[in-house]
Amino acid sequence: MTQPCPANVGDPVEQIETPALLVDLDAYEHNLDCMATIIAEHNVRFRPHAKTHKSPEIALDQIKRGAIGICCQKVSEAEIMVQGGVPDVLVSNQIVGRAKLRRLAALATSVHIAVCADDPGNIAEINAAAAEAEVRLTVLVEIDVGAGRCGVPPGNPALELAQAVASAPNLQFGGLQAYHGGAQHIRSHEARRLAIVEAAGKTSDTIKLLAGDGLECPMVTGGGTGSLDIDLELGVLNELQAGSYIFMDADYGRNFDRDEAPFTPFRNSLFVRASVMSTPRSGVAIIDAGLKALAFDSGNPEIFGRCGAHYVAPSDEHGNLEVSGANPLLLGEAVTLIPGHCDPTVNLYDWYVGVRGDVVERVWPVAARGALS
Amino acid sequence: MTQPCPANVGDPVEQIETPALLVDLDAYEHNLDCMATIIAEHNVRFRPHAKTHKSPEIALDQIKRGAIGICCQKVSEAEIMVQGGVPDVLVSNQIVGRAKLRRLAALATSVHIAVCADDPGNIAEINAAAAEAEVRLTVLVEIDVGAGRCGVPPGNPALELAQAVASAPNLQFGGLQAYHGGAQHIRSHEARRLAIVEAAGKTSDTIKLLAGDGLECPMVTGGGTGSLDIDLELGVLNELQAGSYIFMDADYGRNFDRDEAPFTPFRNSLFVRASVMSTPRSGVAIIDAGLKALAFDSGNPEIFGRCGAHYVAPSDEHGNLEVSGANPLLLGEAVTLIPGHCDPTVNLYDWYVGVRGDVVERVWPVAARGALS
Repeated sequence: MTQPCPANVGDPVEQIETPALLVDLDAYEHNLDCMATIIAEHNVRFRPHAKTHKSPEIALDQIKRGAIGICCQKVSEAEIMVQGGVPDVLVSNQIVGRAKLRRLAALATSVHIAVCADDPGNIAEINAAAAEAEVRLTVLVEIDVGAGRCGVPPGNPALELAQAVASAPNLQFGGLQAYHGGAQHIRSHEARRLAIVEAAGKTSDTIKLLAGDGLECPMVTGGGTGSLDIDLELGVLNELQAGSYIFMDADYGRNFDRDEAPFTPFRNSLFVRASVMSTPRSGVAIIDAGLKALAFDSGNPEIFGRCGAHYVAPSDEHGNLEVSGANPLLLGEAVTLIPGHCDPTVNLYDWYVGVRGDVVERVWPVAARGALS
Repeated sequence: MTQPCPANVGDPVEQIETPALLVDLDAYEHNLDCMATIIAEHNVRFRPHAKTHKSPEIALDQIKRGAIGICCQKVSEAEIMVQGGVPDVLVSNQIVGRAKLRRLAALATSVHIAVCADDPGNIAEINAAAAEAEVRLTVLVEIDVGAGRCGVPPGNPALELAQAVASAPNLQFGGLQAYHGGAQHIRSHEARRLAIVEAAGKTSDTIKLLAGDGLECPMVTGGGTGSLDIDLELGVLNELQAGSYIFMDADYGRNFDRDEAPFTPFRNSLFVRASVMSTPRSGVAIIDAGLKALAFDSGNPEIFGRCGAHYVAPSDEHGNLEVSGANPLLLGEAVTLIPGHCDPTVNLYDWYVGVRGDVVERVWPVAARGALS
């Protein structure tokens, strides 16, 4: 169900078939280099989240710039990353059930695999799968530091699970996952910092509690693009998972678009190129990118590089734009959009079209698009 | 970028890898048969919308039950349908630009292709593409009957475009498209009926205006699942495009879930099967299906066949469920979901898993998944 690539290397951008997922390679490389510099300046490891890009090629670009491996959310993503040459994967998620755990354990025969757990029964079945595959799997205990999703409470519940991991013959206790997803998109930097400081305190207390029981935490992993500066400042996490920095999106733009917020060094590198397919009334343009070409969970996309045009509402295959009457969009004209949310937008496409200036320089697959299991 | 199929024919449902897109074949066939009966009882042609299912196999099932062809929204969808054996396609949308129109005209060398237009310049370029391919393309004029999206106003603007089509040497004037998308989801049947009556009035007046100028409308096409009974009653449309009836969804369920609304004969046949991956607190279950496994533009999915559980919020790969403490969901337990909106949910999957009773009977591809151009 792979669609044809909407462009060929060497094509002028005008020739790209729309809608298409574009990567501005200058901005992309800027983000790669910028993160490499930030990580090198701090005493922290970097394991970016591949759920954002779903591309082994991008993972390898990140590893070339100093990342120690990557994170995935799904076994199927991890399989595609390992197949693509990634040597070290943390599945930063719970993997439940014999079939999925068998696949996970099979990966650990060739590369380093770690996984999170928040349940004693699940720890037992991970151990059984590891024993069957004759591997040792690294298991991190996930603690809920405020996101209210997966994870046991910090403190004693985490200690109990860590002990269960440590005493399982085919498991290696890997440390803690302490990810506060909800905090990444708190608009005010001050409120975001407060949430992360609180999460870091809970994490730090749990590390001490485990150390008192003789359990060291080689990995203390979490963090995102929205909390990067705060995580670096606090220094509690020794591995950072930020993923969106590679692309950025309109929602993260709104995080950094306030006087009180600090400057973000990352640039928008991900765009959707669309075309005007109808100009039915003055002040309106309909484009060929709707719900199947863009994610709307974090709001509408923004129009890039053009004043007086706004994406108002999607339908399945259409985007309704309000356009200033003085500067209308013409039928067939291309429109460049910054997606509201990068991760689920990427998951709608089979191909990245890498553009430098006005020319397509590189096309490559979104190899783990649709990798759900 | 095609993912492995999550099940094999003959598997028990318990063995289906999650998340997976399920079709209840009994309900699916009920919907097929039911629509066949409805169409046979009325003086109307049926051309269901394939943007819902993106599957030539389903299109052929519909054609076997009396559909005269199908609708698509994109040239790439039409290409996949024609390749899959569909002999008659209406692209119920504007197709703009030489590259896409060349592809569209190429299809018309082997099957019957029609397309909509709402702009004189676009009509000229459709004619040029048809001339280049040495075919005659059928062009319908789209009128805006209340949706406020594409289309010229009813009346004289439609007449002018129809004249432009009729006088273009490589075009055949096909009639009118008069689709009121917005009306499909008006919750009250009475208000929905009012909107459709108004749309039908505008359509009817335009048909008469064109007839006065010697322009007959072989096709007057539109309609959806939400307006089906009203379109049949009014009889202005001679071709109906309803697509969602084949699957239904939670949003359409809310249309028909009111005392004042008439009974809908269609059943939910489309489901997402997911699994509980974490039970971190009493009253909460986290499942493995979030924004990349379900569409949320028309609200949250509903939990099927289980009391006291509600889908509260998605994140990218997680679904947060509230669960009654007295009837908890267990780790690893399967959950069956009715998607909020069928079309964009289908577009997230590579495979349909057709289930009858507790056994997988048929698996087939979502062949036009991601067909955006």
